[in-house]
Amino acid sequence: MPTPRTTVRRLPNRGFYDRETIAAILDEGLVCHAGFVADGQPFVIPTLYARREDRIYVHGSAVSRMLRTLAGGVPVCVTVTIVDGLVLARSAFNHSMNYRSVVVLGTATVVEGEEKVRALETIAEHVAAGRWREVRGPSANELKATLVLSLPLDEASAKVRTGPPEDEDEDYALPHWAGVLPLSMVAGSPMPDPRLPAGTAVPPSVRGWRRPRAG
Amino acid sequence: MPTPRTTVRRLPNRGFYDRETIAAILDEGLVCHAGFVADGQPFVIPTLYARREDRIYVHGSAVSRMLRTLAGGVPVCVTVTIVDGLVLARSAFNHSMNYRSVVVLGTATVVEGEEKVRALETIAEHVAAGRWREVRGPSANELKATLVLSLPLDEASAKVRTGPPEDEDEDYALPHWAGVLPLSMVAGSPMPDPRLPAGTAVPPSVRGWRRPRAG
Repeated sequence: MPTPRTTVRRLPNRGFYDRETIAAILDEGLVCHAGFVADGQPFVIPTLYARREDRIYVHGSAVSRMLRTLAGGVPVCVTVTIVDGLVLARSAFNHSMNYRSVVVLGTATVVEGEEKVRALETIAEHVAAGRWREVRGPSANELKATLVLSLPLDEASAKVRTGPPEDEDEDYALPHWAGVLPLSMVAGSPMPDPRLPAGTAVPPSVRGWRRPRAG
Repeated sequence: MPTPRTTVRRLPNRGFYDRETIAAILDEGLVCHAGFVADGQPFVIPTLYARREDRIYVHGSAVSRMLRTLAGGVPVCVTVTIVDGLVLARSAFNHSMNYRSVVVLGTATVVEGEEKVRALETIAEHVAAGRWREVRGPSANELKATLVLSLPLDEASAKVRTGPPEDEDEDYALPHWAGVLPLSMVAGSPMPDPRLPAGTAVPPSVRGWRRPRAG
């Protein structure tokens, strides 16, 4: 449901407010940019995140300035952007970008206990599906050193641009090439840790990594 | 030169403040996330940008809320993040990400006249090198409908993580695979506009697109 603060105003046909569109973008993105204010100055910091049902989780060191600021309940904006392509028009003016983004406004709360472990699992699985069960889980001390925050998706909106360029009528007669150059995030060959015993098999979470996830 | 607001405090060995490191990250990134405050609420919005010498430019519609807010001289934070890979450790706790990011704090000013056209050229060339000269340049009305802002790089810092995971000493004996999965942004096959005459050649700006740029 759009609020006055999340309504896409200038190009309203690019705005989406349904749960499915928002969830799909959040699930495909890898890094969010979290914005908060300290001493009147906005800060925008990239960090991993994950969605579970109607909230997103972020985590970090318990001594991180960003995490501690957000844990204080200040207003936050979390934005996730997926770049899908360059939109190359016949005029410089009509160049654009195909992208999908989600903006979430709200205040975060600290997650504790069993939900904290589940939230960390959710983040690990968001980054690389299957990874949580392939590795050593967090110790009590590691949990203590980690702050996990939850932000509800109550006030969220998506903005999506797809399709070819939209040129001025008279520009279609120009001889310039126009179209879309698709862009995507792809994985290269896994680079084993230098201290890994030779012959250690690359696990499914790494071997099968792709965005968007299969299925 | 780091200021108290841009000094990387928690993991100081990841902080860089030299002009070359900051410029290289800004020149490779494609989209920035601009943060500003309106009615006490931070907003984080993705947008194209480009660096020229010791400033970055952003542009947009002259009626965009973000652009008009920033043009008013409010504090802004512009963050550029390049994701280089997933850092997969033997423990969930030591998972991380290889990335390069730049955070710029300051206030933006409106760019007019000849610098405005040059700034638009800089942005076009940043997105796709060579594109400016392949297409129709902006008309007087298009220039009027566009707002261009300049943000100095006076208060900027970079944060960079590279290399393999750093596991706990005792975890190196675990059998779990560990290493880095490199990630990068790649271009697919150009998709011609449906209204493009058959046989229109794909131009160098599109054919040769890559990040980071060659040379």
